[in-house]
Amino acid sequence: MSRTRLLFAGADEYLATFEAAARSLPQIDLVAYQPGQDLAGIQYLLMWRPVPGLAAAMRDLKAIFCFGAGVDRLLASSDIPAQIPIVRMVEPGLTRGMSEYVLWQALRHHRRIWELEEAQAEGRWAPHWYPAAWERPVGILGLGELGIATGEKLLEFGFPVRGWSRQRKQHADIESFAGPEELPAFLRDLEILICLLPLTEATRGILNAGLFSGLKPGASLINVGRGQHLVEADLLEALASGQLLAASLDVFAKEPLPADHPFWRHPRIFMSPHNASDTDPAGGLGEIARQIGRSLTGQPLEHVADRARGY
Amino acid sequence: MSRTRLLFAGADEYLATFEAAARSLPQIDLVAYQPGQDLAGIQYLLMWRPVPGLAAAMRDLKAIFCFGAGVDRLLASSDIPAQIPIVRMVEPGLTRGMSEYVLWQALRHHRRIWELEEAQAEGRWAPHWYPAAWERPVGILGLGELGIATGEKLLEFGFPVRGWSRQRKQHADIESFAGPEELPAFLRDLEILICLLPLTEATRGILNAGLFSGLKPGASLINVGRGQHLVEADLLEALASGQLLAASLDVFAKEPLPADHPFWRHPRIFMSPHNASDTDPAGGLGEIARQIGRSLTGQPLEHVADRARGY
Repeated sequence: MSRTRLLFAGADEYLATFEAAARSLPQIDLVAYQPGQDLAGIQYLLMWRPVPGLAAAMRDLKAIFCFGAGVDRLLASSDIPAQIPIVRMVEPGLTRGMSEYVLWQALRHHRRIWELEEAQAEGRWAPHWYPAAWERPVGILGLGELGIATGEKLLEFGFPVRGWSRQRKQHADIESFAGPEELPAFLRDLEILICLLPLTEATRGILNAGLFSGLKPGASLINVGRGQHLVEADLLEALASGQLLAASLDVFAKEPLPADHPFWRHPRIFMSPHNASDTDPAGGLGEIARQIGRSLTGQPLEHVADRARGY
Repeated sequence: MSRTRLLFAGADEYLATFEAAARSLPQIDLVAYQPGQDLAGIQYLLMWRPVPGLAAAMRDLKAIFCFGAGVDRLLASSDIPAQIPIVRMVEPGLTRGMSEYVLWQALRHHRRIWELEEAQAEGRWAPHWYPAAWERPVGILGLGELGIATGEKLLEFGFPVRGWSRQRKQHADIESFAGPEELPAFLRDLEILICLLPLTEATRGILNAGLFSGLKPGASLINVGRGQHLVEADLLEALASGQLLAASLDVFAKEPLPADHPFWRHPRIFMSPHNASDTDPAGGLGEIARQIGRSLTGQPLEHVADRARGY
């Protein structure tokens, strides 16, 4: 069996893990990128943050595989030739990890953990009331692979779930809203809002004061999309006014988040360092090998980003 | 339709809520207990903590309904006549609330929240690795109504789930262990242990140093059974040695937990004040009305506690 070369241009600290995972894929020869190396004949590239000039320098490049679900950084890279398909990662481990993280955080907000934590810190025994899951409408911005999987988990706990996306989606149990004109109806009475949108020009800054004011007062926000979805000053103001009670943030406009950023020590912001869900190296490489198999046999690649819509 | 009197001898602060819920049950006349009142002709009693002498004083008493799943306090009450059935509460709201709480805490341990919290407190950007759910065996002590429902939620997230109970249970996806002789095999390599046992003479103090040493080093404990299941000093020692990394406790040997108890400020103990899941008043009273209907028409009551086995 001939082996297909896949150039690895991800972060160096992950190389050993990917090399180990690639060993169980006899059809893939994982080649670590090194500046100045001969790129002739290498048809496939794995990268998540663009390496300037790399794609343009690969004359035989057929496709770029991203290792995450969000391809905004690659799409924003002006030096990737327009005809090269950029493939989003769709992988069960990534999907499961994301719904796991979001459910964890949704339950945290649902149970108003801050009341328990404050009571514990004060040594105060204070049983508190919380509504039943079915009294807590949850909204998901972005009803793609991850949004649907997360919505289905929320449904299993009894939460009423609605979703909002560019185009209306069909789902038996998730009420679907579409487009800017339906955003206010989607937001109305929501108590927990989850952002799983791709970052595009249409969604940049969507988590702002105007949107927060459309939620039920005292709602919670979970942002696992991109930091640029959020207007950071508006979140701090909404938390100060009580329009929002708490937020869980995995993504930030600037990563790593600067050490002096006010989010770090805000008592109602729970943070994780862009770590909500990572693609499993073995699962992700297996998915890339499957897609390369399709490409080599002339079948169309799946999950190719659409440059016009921006994801 | 004639109305059946149900004597409410729960905590006073809940009376108004129960009266409101009872209004939608035309067959039930909820009567608030007052010392010295005429008890003649009242056949049904609702109480969760025993009121001394009350059951014995009700000459026409046919059944006692508990409003929680655990009837250990009622069974331990020596002045409840032995022939009066004590009915455990089985109600969808109670079951859902418990699986909600346990999943929340299990995900918290699975994601090693303490690493995230410590990094956040220090303003340190520190992406951390965590295993996939399917690499994390979870064990449930007690495979009754609540244990099975919780196990099924854990399975949906991909955790391998095993259970331990007095007698072996049949479940397609939950490996069932039974009796003291199978406890070591049940515990082996467990990373998250959940206690949902009833409190009986056989289970009192079961969460002790010997049991902890049978888990995988660095495991987590979630106790939502009874405080008396746990040997508190052994937990503190296991946390100090690292045999356990963290614990979530909803129940305590003494409730309210005394203000000077070391659990309050332990950085790796998350506490809630016996608040993991409360029976929904409307749902619970509806269930009692259904059971009273059975009793009045000569059908056997369901979920009657077995005094010999102790739950």
